[in-house]
Amino acid sequence: MSPMPDPNAVLAALRAAFGADEVLAGDASPRHLKDWSTAVGGIPLAILRPRSTDALARMLAICHAHGQPVVPQGGLSGLVGGAVPSGGEVLISLERMNAIEDLDLDSGTVTVQAGAVLQTIQEACRDAGALLAVDLGARGSCQIGGNVSTNAGGNRVIRYGNTRDSVLGLEVVLADGTVLPMMNRMVKNNAGMDLKHLFIGSEGVLGIVTRVVLKLQPLPQGTSTALVAVADFASALRFLRHAQQSLSGQISAFEIMWRDYLDTAVAANRLRKPFVTDHPVYVLTDMHCGQPETDAQRFQAMLEAAIEAGWIVDAAVAQSVADAEALWAIRDGVAEVLRDHAPTLNFDVSVPVAQIGECAARVRANLERDWPQLKALFFGHVGDGNLHVVVCKVPEDAASVHAIEDAVYSVVRDYGGSVSAEHGIGVLKRDWLHYSRSAAELALMRTLKQSLDPCGILNPGKML
Amino acid sequence: MSPMPDPNAVLAALRAAFGADEVLAGDASPRHLKDWSTAVGGIPLAILRPRSTDALARMLAICHAHGQPVVPQGGLSGLVGGAVPSGGEVLISLERMNAIEDLDLDSGTVTVQAGAVLQTIQEACRDAGALLAVDLGARGSCQIGGNVSTNAGGNRVIRYGNTRDSVLGLEVVLADGTVLPMMNRMVKNNAGMDLKHLFIGSEGVLGIVTRVVLKLQPLPQGTSTALVAVADFASALRFLRHAQQSLSGQISAFEIMWRDYLDTAVAANRLRKPFVTDHPVYVLTDMHCGQPETDAQRFQAMLEAAIEAGWIVDAAVAQSVADAEALWAIRDGVAEVLRDHAPTLNFDVSVPVAQIGECAARVRANLERDWPQLKALFFGHVGDGNLHVVVCKVPEDAASVHAIEDAVYSVVRDYGGSVSAEHGIGVLKRDWLHYSRSAAELALMRTLKQSLDPCGILNPGKML
Repeated sequence: MSPMPDPNAVLAALRAAFGADEVLAGDASPRHLKDWSTAVGGIPLAILRPRSTDALARMLAICHAHGQPVVPQGGLSGLVGGAVPSGGEVLISLERMNAIEDLDLDSGTVTVQAGAVLQTIQEACRDAGALLAVDLGARGSCQIGGNVSTNAGGNRVIRYGNTRDSVLGLEVVLADGTVLPMMNRMVKNNAGMDLKHLFIGSEGVLGIVTRVVLKLQPLPQGTSTALVAVADFASALRFLRHAQQSLSGQISAFEIMWRDYLDTAVAANRLRKPFVTDHPVYVLTDMHCGQPETDAQRFQAMLEAAIEAGWIVDAAVAQSVADAEALWAIRDGVAEVLRDHAPTLNFDVSVPVAQIGECAARVRANLERDWPQLKALFFGHVGDGNLHVVVCKVPEDAASVHAIEDAVYSVVRDYGGSVSAEHGIGVLKRDWLHYSRSAAELALMRTLKQSLDPCGILNPGKML
Repeated sequence: MSPMPDPNAVLAALRAAFGADEVLAGDASPRHLKDWSTAVGGIPLAILRPRSTDALARMLAICHAHGQPVVPQGGLSGLVGGAVPSGGEVLISLERMNAIEDLDLDSGTVTVQAGAVLQTIQEACRDAGALLAVDLGARGSCQIGGNVSTNAGGNRVIRYGNTRDSVLGLEVVLADGTVLPMMNRMVKNNAGMDLKHLFIGSEGVLGIVTRVVLKLQPLPQGTSTALVAVADFASALRFLRHAQQSLSGQISAFEIMWRDYLDTAVAANRLRKPFVTDHPVYVLTDMHCGQPETDAQRFQAMLEAAIEAGWIVDAAVAQSVADAEALWAIRDGVAEVLRDHAPTLNFDVSVPVAQIGECAARVRANLERDWPQLKALFFGHVGDGNLHVVVCKVPEDAASVHAIEDAVYSVVRDYGGSVSAEHGIGVLKRDWLHYSRSAAELALMRTLKQSLDPCGILNPGKML
C-alpha cells in the first residue's frame, strides 16, 4: 500500500482534467452509499461519472498516481456490499456509459458499454429476435458491468450457465489507467491466455470493466412449466437426472422448495396452494421451447414417465402463461417472505448436488439445536448445487449473527462447498472466505492483486 | 530468468529424491521428442514420471531451486509443438497419473488425474450413463490434463462449449512446487476469484494441471443427422439461425464444408458423393436426442421449414447409424486429404460468425493471386466462428511458408479474429500471436508469467 493520498491534491487534479458534471464532490447522493444489503457506507471523497473508456482511464491514472482508493459502481443491487464505499474513496459510476454499441444476430453477439442496464439489453435483444440468457431479479437496476464483475447467477444457470458463460469479450481499465482491449467475439479463441476470466467475478479488485461482448442464445418460442411434488430430496435428484436425460439437457430452470419455504411464500404472497395435500419437497421446472407444440408433448411425456417410475407423486402443468406465472409467483415471492420475517439472515451457499439434501438436513439440525425458536426456510437452484436458506426473525447482535453464520458455513465447509454461490464476497462474507478457499488459493489471489494493482487502489477491503 | 542450471546438480538432486524408474535420463524415448505437428524437438536432460501430485510437486521444487526448465507432457497429440522440448529441459510426463478417482452421477461430476486418456474417461462415463462432452479426434491419445491446458475444442463445441466449459475444478502445481487445490464441484461458486481459468488454455506456462473435476452432461439416447446443401455461405448462416431457434439451441454439430473440401475428401476417402448434383456449400449438422422418436420429428420439421423457406436446397437425412457414419466420414476424412496433398499448411482460425464467408473469400483471393498453382480447401465449425483452411502441396522453404501464413493471418487480423481457434500457440504460432492480441494483453500475459513463475522454468519458449 502507498502512503495516504492527499484529498485536496486528488480533487484538484481531477477538477483540472474534467468538467464539473464529471467530478461531483461534497454532496454524495445517498444512493451511492448503499446497495441492497445491510452493508453501511461511508462518505466518499468524490463521485466520478465518465462518459467514455478514455475518460475513465484518465481518471484512474490520476487516482493511481496519487494512491487514491477507488470504488467502481454499477446498479448497486449487490447483496454483499461489494460496491459500497467505506469512506474517503473516489466512486466511479458507470451509469453514463450505457450504450448498446452493436447487436449482430448472425454472429450471435451483442456489444455494450458496462453501464447498460441488464433489462435494457435483454429487451433490445428480444426485439431483435435473440435471447440474452443472463437474467436475475435485479434486472431492472443492475448494470452489465456489475453482472460481469460479480459473475451473476440467477434461475437460468442450469441451462445457460453463469454470466461468465455469456461473456465472449471484455474491455477493462487496469489500476494505472491502462486500457486492456479483449473484445473477442468468437466462441473459439485459443490465441494465448484467456485474460478476461481474471476480471469476471473478481468484484472490481483487479480492474474496471468498461465494455462487454455477450453471446446470444436462440429466442425461445414458448416455455413449458410444471410444479412437481416429490417425497424427498433423493426423489428430486432422480427426477432431475431423468428430466435432463429425457429432454437432452434442455431444462431451463429446476428450483427446489422445501415445504417450509413453499408454505411461507404462499402465505406471505396470499397465493393459492398448488396441491390439495402437502408434500415434503417441491420442484418448479421449465423448458424453453423451439417448436412449442412438439416440445410441450416431450415435456408431458417426461413428466408421465417420472410419475410412472415413482420419482414424482404429483405435477401441476401450466396450461397458459398465466398458469406459469402463478407457479413462478411462489418461487419469486422471496421479497415478501423477507419483509414478513425481518430481520432475516439470508444464505446463498453451494455444495455438490448429491449432498444438498444432507447438507440442508444438517444445517436444519444445527439451527434447531441452538436456536429452537428460529424458523428457517430452504429453497434453491438444485441443478447448480445452489441452496438458499433464510433464517427468520434473527437476533441482531453481532455475536448471534456470527454464531448462526458459523452454524451454516461450517456444514458447507465440510462438503467442500461455497459460502457464496452467486452473491460474491464483498465485505459481508469476507470473514468466511477461508471456509471455501485454501491458503494457497488466497495467497495466489493476493499475488494477482499485487501484480495488477500494486498500489492497492481498486475497491480496497472488498473480497480479500 | 535465472542463471543457467547445472545439469549434473539437477540430475543428482532428482536421483537422490526419486527412484530410477521415476527419473529416466540419457535415453530419451523418441516419442517424447515430438507431437502431431512438424515441430522438431531437442534432447531433454531427463524424463520424470511422477505417480502422485506430491511427487510432481517435489520434482518441481527441485527444478525451481536449480532454475531448471521443465516441459509438461500429456498425450503429445498437440498440433503446435506446445509440449515438445527444445533441448536440455526436464520433461514431466503425466502418464502414470491416470486414475479416474470419482464418478458421481447425482452431482454430475467426474474427478480424474491429469494423465487419464480422454477416451478412457469418456467410456467410463458412458458406461455409467452420462456424457463427458469434451471430444476431439485425438481422443484415444490425448490426456485430459493436456485438453485442459490447451482448452481443446472439437466438433461439439457449438452445443457443449470448449474444454473450459466442462471444467469445474482443478488441482495445479505451481512452478515452485506449491500445490494449488481448486477442486470445486459446483456449477455456482462465487467465493473469491475463479483461479482455475488462469491455467485452462495457458499451455503449461503458469502451472502443471494434476487433477480435474469435469462436469457431465445427460447421455444422448440417439442422434439425428443430416447433410444439407446450400447455395452460398449467407444461406448457411440463415439455416444455422433457423436450426438453433427451431431446436432451441440443441444443435450439437454444425460443420460447414465448401465444395472444394467436400470433393477432395470424397476422392481421398473413396466415398460416394452425397448428392447427384454439386453445390457450392454443404453443412453437416446433428442433434443429440433425449426422446429419439419425437426428436427425429422435430429435426425433420426443422429441415422441412428450411427447405420451404429456401434457406437450403437439398438434405440427406441419416436413417440409420450407418447412414450417419457415412455422412460424417466426409467431414472426418481430413487425415486422408492431408496425406494425399502433403506437404500441406493447415490453418485453424476464427472470426465472428457473420464474417466467415467474407473472410474465406478474401483468403481464397489472396492465395489465388500470389500462388495460382496452389489448391486450398475450406471447412470449419461455423457456429463457433472456426474456419479451417488446408493449403495443399505447399513449397517448404521458410520464406514461402511465412508468406502463405501472412496471406491468411493478415485477413484474420482485419476481422479481429484469432490465429488459433482451437490448437493453441505453442512454438509454431508464436510469431503470429500479436496479430490477434494487443500489446496491452501481451504485457499482462508476461506480468502473470513473471508473478507465477519468476524463474521462468515452466515450458519456456511456448506461447510467449
